[in-house]
Amino acid sequence: MQIGMMGLGRMGANMVRRLMRDGHQCVVYDINAASVAALVKDGAIGAASMEEFVGKLAKPRGAWLMLPAAITGKIADQVAALMEPGDIIIDGGNSYYHDAVDQAAELAAKGISYVDVGTSGGVWGLERGYCLMIGGPDEAVRHLDPIFATLAPGADAGANPAKDAGTAPFGYLHCGPSGAGHFVKMVHNGIEYGVMAAYAEGMNILKSANAGKRQRTADAETSPLENPQYYQFDIDLAQVAEVWRHGSVIGSWLLDLTAGALKADSALTQFGGRVSDSGEGRWTLKAAIDTGVPAPVLSSALFDRFSSQGESEFSDKLLSAMRYAFGGHVEKPKTGS
Amino acid sequence: MQIGMMGLGRMGANMVRRLMRDGHQCVVYDINAASVAALVKDGAIGAASMEEFVGKLAKPRGAWLMLPAAITGKIADQVAALMEPGDIIIDGGNSYYHDAVDQAAELAAKGISYVDVGTSGGVWGLERGYCLMIGGPDEAVRHLDPIFATLAPGADAGANPAKDAGTAPFGYLHCGPSGAGHFVKMVHNGIEYGVMAAYAEGMNILKSANAGKRQRTADAETSPLENPQYYQFDIDLAQVAEVWRHGSVIGSWLLDLTAGALKADSALTQFGGRVSDSGEGRWTLKAAIDTGVPAPVLSSALFDRFSSQGESEFSDKLLSAMRYAFGGHVEKPKTGS
Amino acid sequence: MQIGMMGLGRMGANMVRRLMRDGHQCVVYDINAASVAALVKDGAIGAASMEEFVGKLAKPRGAWLMLPAAITGKIADQVAALMEPGDIIIDGGNSYYHDAVDQAAELAAKGISYVDVGTSGGVWGLERGYCLMIGGPDEAVRHLDPIFATLAPGADAGANPAKDAGTAPFGYLHCGPSGAGHFVKMVHNGIEYGVMAAYAEGMNILKSANAGKRQRTADAETSPLENPQYYQFDIDLAQVAEVWRHGSVIGSWLLDLTAGALKADSALTQFGGRVSDSGEGRWTLKAAIDTGVPAPVLSSALFDRFSSQGESEFSDKLLSAMRYAFGGHVEKPKTGS
Amino acid sequence: MQIGMMGLGRMGANMVRRLMRDGHQCVVYDINAASVAALVKDGAIGAASMEEFVGKLAKPRGAWLMLPAAITGKIADQVAALMEPGDIIIDGGNSYYHDAVDQAAELAAKGISYVDVGTSGGVWGLERGYCLMIGGPDEAVRHLDPIFATLAPGADAGANPAKDAGTAPFGYLHCGPSGAGHFVKMVHNGIEYGVMAAYAEGMNILKSANAGKRQRTADAETSPLENPQYYQFDIDLAQVAEVWRHGSVIGSWLLDLTAGALKADSALTQFGGRVSDSGEGRWTLKAAIDTGVPAPVLSSALFDRFSSQGESEFSDKLLSAMRYAFGGHVEKPKTGS
Repeated sequence: MQIGMMGLGRMGANMVRRLMRDGHQCVVYDINAASVAALVKDGAIGAASMEEFVGKLAKPRGAWLMLPAAITGKIADQVAALMEPGDIIIDGGNSYYHDAVDQAAELAAKGISYVDVGTSGGVWGLERGYCLMIGGPDEAVRHLDPIFATLAPGADAGANPAKDAGTAPFGYLHCGPSGAGHFVKMVHNGIEYGVMAAYAEGMNILKSANAGKRQRTADAETSPLENPQYYQFDIDLAQVAEVWRHGSVIGSWLLDLTAGALKADSALTQFGGRVSDSGEGRWTLKAAIDTGVPAPVLSSALFDRFSSQGESEFSDKLLSAMRYAFGGHVEKPKTGS
Repeated sequence: MQIGMMGLGRMGANMVRRLMRDGHQCVVYDINAASVAALVKDGAIGAASMEEFVGKLAKPRGAWLMLPAAITGKIADQVAALMEPGDIIIDGGNSYYHDAVDQAAELAAKGISYVDVGTSGGVWGLERGYCLMIGGPDEAVRHLDPIFATLAPGADAGANPAKDAGTAPFGYLHCGPSGAGHFVKMVHNGIEYGVMAAYAEGMNILKSANAGKRQRTADAETSPLENPQYYQFDIDLAQVAEVWRHGSVIGSWLLDLTAGALKADSALTQFGGRVSDSGEGRWTLKAAIDTGVPAPVLSSALFDRFSSQGESEFSDKLLSAMRYAFGGHVEKPKTGS
Repeated sequence: MQIGMMGLGRMGANMVRRLMRDGHQCVVYDINAASVAALVKDGAIGAASMEEFVGKLAKPRGAWLMLPAAITGKIADQVAALMEPGDIIIDGGNSYYHDAVDQAAELAAKGISYVDVGTSGGVWGLERGYCLMIGGPDEAVRHLDPIFATLAPGADAGANPAKDAGTAPFGYLHCGPSGAGHFVKMVHNGIEYGVMAAYAEGMNILKSANAGKRQRTADAETSPLENPQYYQFDIDLAQVAEVWRHGSVIGSWLLDLTAGALKADSALTQFGGRVSDSGEGRWTLKAAIDTGVPAPVLSSALFDRFSSQGESEFSDKLLSAMRYAFGGHVEKPKTGS
Repeated sequence: MQIGMMGLGRMGANMVRRLMRDGHQCVVYDINAASVAALVKDGAIGAASMEEFVGKLAKPRGAWLMLPAAITGKIADQVAALMEPGDIIIDGGNSYYHDAVDQAAELAAKGISYVDVGTSGGVWGLERGYCLMIGGPDEAVRHLDPIFATLAPGADAGANPAKDAGTAPFGYLHCGPSGAGHFVKMVHNGIEYGVMAAYAEGMNILKSANAGKRQRTADAETSPLENPQYYQFDIDLAQVAEVWRHGSVIGSWLLDLTAGALKADSALTQFGGRVSDSGEGRWTLKAAIDTGVPAPVLSSALFDRFSSQGESEFSDKLLSAMRYAFGGHVEKPKTGS
């Protein structure tokens, strides 16, 4: 079938390629004409403006937006203004689900359906397929089923899902009304932060397994290592990550990636340790707080990222100031990395 | 080759079966004669006492202990007393790596090697193979290689590890001297706690996505839900867990198990929510604390288990007592589950 | 000077008493006529309706609302509708500062000032005075200075603040424009949760100092206590709380209250351990999340309260379900309190 | 009465001064002769060697050690070798209570009593008095009562403790057998970490209250601030800390110090934010872990200190590596402070 794709960055362009590879017709638009041209060369129908983009779509139109969260809402409004009742806007970005709930209500009044699709798979989605978490009105979601079926991984090699198992075993799921897709994707990313942090902390502990061999400052501001004989191991982190991939309880795709990264450079020298966060982890916690659900692991993972961004500095200074005030403790200098 | 297995519980018995299936000879012993008999029927050589067990082993003897951590040390001493220089004791249980370090030093003086093998794979190991994390002297570990190669999963279907990639791609790894195997397994389990908690917290948040539909007590001791319109989703947790298994960033074996459990009963009615912990999570944190490594995610996961065991009760009572003391706040009754 | 007080609960009534005791004239109103009557007997001017309440106030009117957060906004609108330019509405409740920001902007358009006053001091404020954190336009705040000065503790016995030290040493502070008062009070309460939890956790650890004396189940689902000889202390918690009040680094008013509660009943039998939270802790964390500030301690304190309210149950069930799935671990029954 | 003091650093020297001021006779010794001389000038009896120190003590001897934890055990053994049955060694340092338990058992065999005294009060103790948490045999503790009574603050001005209230209201407490004093002091410091962190996190949130005014990078790796209108406050942290000291629920001595530090320099420019920890916080958590007590707040406080010491770096690098691997996210550079 035909679908329009607007926003041809890494994710959007790859999705177009996966769709065309499966025989779908794609009308594409991006503010960057070169991105359009590249896909036109591969068989897509290009558009030079938003108006042309909407104009080239067959009715009922389906316009998939793959844009930064910050501008999605505004662009969706502009696209909607060019549409007619029965048309569908799909937001596949990492937008806040609140916006989807609000925008869907507005567009519904004009007869336009708003479908929010949380999309996981990263740079690997072109080959592996994308895991799709979908929110929106039944009819619109049903209409788009061939698109979802192509973007999703499909049944894994050898899998043979039960007839009544629905679409989840194929990697896409209609989670509920508008907003539900982004809600589920939001929590997905919140979990992702926690899982990533669990591996990272564990690896850091393994790395310290030789602490008993290291020279240790002996001053009143340094806690001594009581039993150095138990910290004499030089663990090969890359090998450990690799072995865990085979038969252990903690095997996962993130572990696969971890093993690959450590194999390439076990010291990770190309990274400085400033870990970005991009919204979903924050929103997940706000949802937990709103609904009174304890999320100590997910919040610890998020707050560690904030710290890595330098945001603990003032509170840490204040702790040193208190220690100086009550005990005369003089702060030790920060050690470089 | 030949190996002795002592301790024929779920793990030990399955390991014997996997070894015999691959042509190894197993001498088996357990305090429970029926467990021995069952494996003898399947082709193992049974022993009726520890002495007979050691006596039936060919030199250099290899005695694998698969026992509760609490008694492993004592039994290892008894087995060692029956052994000769060149023999090998393998501890495959969830013992504290401190004990392995200490015991290896003692046995080394008698010429006996102590090999500690962290074993992951649970009840699925018989079919999938066990992930083995090994500590001990080079020679002893090399000697046991055929045993490890059989117990481990081996190269996965389609995998084709590089010639010099070592044994990790086959699911077993010599991590370092005695104690290193249990150390790596300990951290593995610490990570496991964190990963499990990440999924559990996320699922709990998804479950609360309909909080805006629920009746909410309106009193000064209940925090109001500000925007109920954003919490109107009835999420099908089993379906979400299933869809995440296909193409998402958080795919993992634990997620596979989660999806299976939720599919069987999405309300998890057969469980009460008292989560046990069995030592490794605690030891992991002690190692983190000793070496000054931050582990907020792993500790949050452990402490939640303690809370589930009822161990927050006194501190929570004290919080209510403080609230009453400064603000006259009267505690609301605990709600049943 | 004259002030109107609406909402004569525990806090509002005590504040009226403290004001009248210092010579201020109070016009009072509450939906509950008995509350009005009680204060009229003590010298207040009563009102039988909102209209009468506003009508009896001298211009420029000052109407202090001491109401539940849930209804403050609506009532403020109703009061404002009866007011004239130059009048002042004061919100002394635990309202969300967002509402203060929004409402102040609306009322400013009508020439009415909105002053938000975070009020700490609990049931002790009548005698000790209330700590006041104030947001609002300069002129209105200056106008109300005599009221604030009376409600606040004033300079402590023996204190002799510098001339230019402002009002903070007297226990009240103009923190910024409308919303700033509730913002500061919100963070105050967030800190309060953290401080309370620190004491509660520490006391819980002290209580467990005799763990080595207790009978301990020895099964695979119970982590053993390695060195029981180090856990043989029966600590008198009430005495410890008392001694810490004198000369230690952790002396505080909350510790004073803790000592009092433990002295009255060291087992805290009148409490069940369900700890309420009333909004500010949640809002504090949302502010931290919005602005990217790490708050692991404050969030841990909040999430523990959620857990005490039973909200970990589903995630804990899921953890038990996973443990059963991978390791065949059968859950132990929940122990009663 | 007479007491010997060994270790004349900040704490030891001040304690000698407080004791002499109240009429006690002090025999003093330190490896640094100048420290001895300074106190001799003030009236103490000096010793030039450990032998002379012990020799000058009247029987039953009381030797108070105020030494770094790392050497206390060894010195205590040396002093004990010079002592006779009936003598008493007092350890007033921040030693691990395990050592006190072990050493007390050894010395008891020789008839020497080991009294462990946790001492809080920091540089302020000379004037305010020290809060003393005491472990040891009844007789020895009773014998030293006059010393404890002098070192402790005594009843606060205006206080009038009940006759049967014991010594706690005077600021010292016999907590139990040897080790109990250091155990209680350990938990005291664990709580201290948590309380300090609560204030520090809260202050950091207040500092960010103007986040809506700051220029914010708009890229995919930076989470946007949704509602900048709610973050327009420039809060005067020093004034807020000051106002909270008067009548609020979170008044405390640590808050007094915080207010002082912020008043002196609200930017805390003399501090870099590397927060040391000196053992007790670590030991507190190990005790919590051993006994299965949840301590999420205390552990969060400790782990933040570890992070401030640079120990999150590797795990943070690994998180960036994972983000790059699954999503092609390029790490942003670390911002300087």
